[in-house]
Amino acid sequence: MRQFAQQLSKYDPINGVVEGARPAIERRLSDLKGVFADERAYEAALAEADSLVYTTYCVAPEEGDGAMLYCIGKFMPGRIGAEYYMTKGHIHSRPEAAEFYFGLHGQGVMLLEDEASGDSRLLPLRPNGAIYVPGHTAHRTFNTGDEPLTYLSVVAATAGHDYEVIAARGNFRQVVVEVDGQPTMIDRASYLQSLSR
Amino acid sequence: MRQFAQQLSKYDPINGVVEGARPAIERRLSDLKGVFADERAYEAALAEADSLVYTTYCVAPEEGDGAMLYCIGKFMPGRIGAEYYMTKGHIHSRPEAAEFYFGLHGQGVMLLEDEASGDSRLLPLRPNGAIYVPGHTAHRTFNTGDEPLTYLSVVAATAGHDYEVIAARGNFRQVVVEVDGQPTMIDRASYLQSLSR
Repeated sequence: MRQFAQQLSKYDPINGVVEGARPAIERRLSDLKGVFADERAYEAALAEADSLVYTTYCVAPEEGDGAMLYCIGKFMPGRIGAEYYMTKGHIHSRPEAAEFYFGLHGQGVMLLEDEASGDSRLLPLRPNGAIYVPGHTAHRTFNTGDEPLTYLSVVAATAGHDYEVIAARGNFRQVVVEVDGQPTMIDRASYLQSLSR
Repeated sequence: MRQFAQQLSKYDPINGVVEGARPAIERRLSDLKGVFADERAYEAALAEADSLVYTTYCVAPEEGDGAMLYCIGKFMPGRIGAEYYMTKGHIHSRPEAAEFYFGLHGQGVMLLEDEASGDSRLLPLRPNGAIYVPGHTAHRTFNTGDEPLTYLSVVAATAGHDYEVIAARGNFRQVVVEVDGQPTMIDRASYLQSLSR
């Protein structure tokens, strides 16, 4: 039988790490330039500290058609202005590839944006809950709680990450901000307008 | 945006159910004829009660290339002779499709058998642990503990289940039995011989 590194793996659902693995992604505020709508709040926060926003640890035993990988994400609580700490967001390089997210700890939301229509949905990411991200859908995760958010994501090994498609058209069409204590989806243009008032 | 039934789902990691879903699979002892090596012990157990062995609840929001599904399995503790309660076992109809298993509660093992070589491996399935089942690999789950075992499995929606390949060649090449309190893999022919002594 072919032997796979990490065919058997252990993860820590609270600390958001895979035993014996190194972080696949580690993003600080400085890595998220252009992600937050409120640029003034972003620059002010960055001037204070280049805080760690999220890390992911991944288990990818093999490559190729039919292979799968999973990651555990750990997300710090925090806000930039009214916007929650968020991931860069991506679509898949193989655009038809779906992905499952399973909440482990803490409280978050995911923003899903259909590539064809631009329609957006906001879904809660919570312990014992799963979110299905269909293909052709840009997705971004937010920590909306006061403690770290951890979650598993499971996807085809061939899915890949594409950040360029979103960067090329500016950003996601919606921002997610705290309104009356609740995560709320607002049209980016309207939010930018409200900031300039 | 296309709307998916169960794009957002909740599962109970202890009771092994998906909220609002019906069981996809429900197997009792009588459904597992030919699975246990110890036929005499099997018939004796079945004569006593047609016990529930396992259930799975699945979330399959869409079909087709790129789509994924997940299931939560709940597995009762029990033995037939020295063999642990086990699943029927399967390979995927699309044989290159891999699958991830994530232990949620209880203690189990998985038996993996490479279709080409017949080589077998026994891996522990435990809370916060993941097992990667590569393509072209028959796999079967066992509850080796004293309480229900629950786990998540995540796979391509097109993977499918094939039970016939295993049935056609008799069964898995190895049995998993309790030896000195430990789950142990034994060659089926040797185990059958030991039973007839």
